[in-house]
Amino acid sequence: MTALPFEIESRDGQARRGRLRTAHGEVQTPTFMPVGTLGAVKGLTPGQLEEAGARVMLANLYHLSLRPGIETVARMGGIHRFTGWNGAILTDSGGFQVFSLSGLRKVEERGVTFRNHLDGGLLELTPESVVAAQESIGVDIAMVLDECPPWPVSEAAAEAALERTLRWAERSAEARRSPSTALFGIAQGSHFRPLRERAVAALSGLPFDGYAIGGVSVGEPMAERRAVIEWTAPLLPPDRPRYLMGVGTIEDILHAVSNGVDLFDCVLPARNGRHGGLLHRGGLLRIRNARYREDPGPIDPECSCPVCRTQSRAFLHHLFRSGEITAAVYGTLHNLRVYLDFMGEVREAIAAFRLADLAPKWVGRSADELRTELPHAADF
Amino acid sequence: MTALPFEIESRDGQARRGRLRTAHGEVQTPTFMPVGTLGAVKGLTPGQLEEAGARVMLANLYHLSLRPGIETVARMGGIHRFTGWNGAILTDSGGFQVFSLSGLRKVEERGVTFRNHLDGGLLELTPESVVAAQESIGVDIAMVLDECPPWPVSEAAAEAALERTLRWAERSAEARRSPSTALFGIAQGSHFRPLRERAVAALSGLPFDGYAIGGVSVGEPMAERRAVIEWTAPLLPPDRPRYLMGVGTIEDILHAVSNGVDLFDCVLPARNGRHGGLLHRGGLLRIRNARYREDPGPIDPECSCPVCRTQSRAFLHHLFRSGEITAAVYGTLHNLRVYLDFMGEVREAIAAFRLADLAPKWVGRSADELRTELPHAADF
Repeated sequence: MTALPFEIESRDGQARRGRLRTAHGEVQTPTFMPVGTLGAVKGLTPGQLEEAGARVMLANLYHLSLRPGIETVARMGGIHRFTGWNGAILTDSGGFQVFSLSGLRKVEERGVTFRNHLDGGLLELTPESVVAAQESIGVDIAMVLDECPPWPVSEAAAEAALERTLRWAERSAEARRSPSTALFGIAQGSHFRPLRERAVAALSGLPFDGYAIGGVSVGEPMAERRAVIEWTAPLLPPDRPRYLMGVGTIEDILHAVSNGVDLFDCVLPARNGRHGGLLHRGGLLRIRNARYREDPGPIDPECSCPVCRTQSRAFLHHLFRSGEITAAVYGTLHNLRVYLDFMGEVREAIAAFRLADLAPKWVGRSADELRTELPHAADF
Repeated sequence: MTALPFEIESRDGQARRGRLRTAHGEVQTPTFMPVGTLGAVKGLTPGQLEEAGARVMLANLYHLSLRPGIETVARMGGIHRFTGWNGAILTDSGGFQVFSLSGLRKVEERGVTFRNHLDGGLLELTPESVVAAQESIGVDIAMVLDECPPWPVSEAAAEAALERTLRWAERSAEARRSPSTALFGIAQGSHFRPLRERAVAALSGLPFDGYAIGGVSVGEPMAERRAVIEWTAPLLPPDRPRYLMGVGTIEDILHAVSNGVDLFDCVLPARNGRHGGLLHRGGLLRIRNARYREDPGPIDPECSCPVCRTQSRAFLHHLFRSGEITAAVYGTLHNLRVYLDFMGEVREAIAAFRLADLAPKWVGRSADELRTELPHAADF
């Protein structure tokens, strides 16, 4: 019995192509979930998001708790009705904010108390309240509350955070009431292999509908992130979806897919898109650069998105240089489409046992992408 | 011979319902032309603008001359190809900037020199250069260069500006080279009836494809604006389209239509929409107001726009309060749709000889709208 039937259709090495059945539509995996922290992907309508190919939108329980408040979302008919997005919705629990807002929170056994970043009021999240809140607004996939440690961190501190996260995971599993909201456990353990193994062993014994790898994308070098994925992903229950939280570049996603990960989210493509870092097959195009002033071609001649069908690099250059809102809309539309098209190619490649062939086409850009990443403060 | 065939199909009093045939589609009049100063309506794609019902977009020659430069637009294949908007385009000449940027320009017989507001460089516009520039980028409707006086202004100063504007109009008519770009003359004369009559008499003798009433929406009281329209519009050549520049509220448009005006543009609906002033049949809804925090209804139950079909007041309240870009997109989409739907009702009412019936339904809101108008500095 699971709220989230998951069927693996084919494999290429450890990579899996599958289907998730949510109450808001079927989702082919591997897939990328655009981030709509407060219920909307910045600049886009739900129709545009769907046209870009998204089937799951990510929102954030911590942020929704502050604005507009979970009770408001529930009273307005739940998160789908409230946001107008009829695809699936996954909410992160606030565990990442334990890391990103570390100066504003206190972690205790009972839960986390935040001094909220908007008006200084207190917000308490407990494993139980987080499950109840996500169920009350009808998300398709809820995440447990966890403690995401910073990087670097001592092994002792990472272990303490992990043990608490595992106790919270048990409480979360017991707190479930709704049969229609799936719940994912989150493996922590920083870059310590024994801790990651301990995390997976403990979580695998709990009845989660899926399992996430947390605690990455917190400033660690790429090699450490990759090691964590390689140690952790193959150990997760093979019949359940696997979600790598907050990752990442095309190159990182391809690496993780090859290690058996199914779900991804990241602010990177939308945020870069808003700021003029436009993806194309072969690199990152910094559209404000003077070289594009009179470039009549599309961002990416291979892209089928509405921006590439109708707008030139020259016009986008002009709009970005002029600070027009439409520039941010176009950049977001295009970059998300590229990510979602890329995920489609990943799925086709897995089915054709040709996943390895994708790297030469797509990976040239990744180093450049990483350099464009903005500080975490701008993350929501 | 005109670049802009215009056919009047029916009349209700002085109001006219007609059709303009442009090289980029037929336009039913009276109509409202959304403002895309730099080639894009802020926040919208051309597809969204078309779906809202727009058939003509307004752009601005002064602003395009600075960014990205007229030569760039021409080299990129003209303004339609450059912007991706395939409907008709009208460009204002820069005459309004003679008013709005009065501290940065010098008017001489030859033309206007601006110290541009971006980098302090000099930009000269002459009647001839303005016609040539608009023709070179392939706009459907070009406007002559004029001198828009401030309000209030002495009769002597208004007369001097008018006489220069009329000399420039003659030079503009002679400067035409392209048979496919229509050119409109602009009647000035501030709030002096003899000057307005003089303007119309002189312009009517010149072979323009249409005639505009300029020099309004510069801070004058509503009564003066209405008097100017009532004196001027009925005198304009009856077989040519009439364009009231920069106006305005629903109430102002209804008044002008009743006096025989066919074309309108105004930043008001889009600007209010971006800032949370949302129109509905019956008033202006200030969506940030706490009363909408848990209002599950659409902005306007009678509205058929995509925002009203899928989004609640509560969600819009949340997005505006949170400063999300999507809020500006939704506000713009909705308000433009209301204006364009209103123009559709105006056309139907003229055909049914029931124009007078529209006022009770639509005009309640106008006083409130006017109070929401923002300063001119935010005009582009």
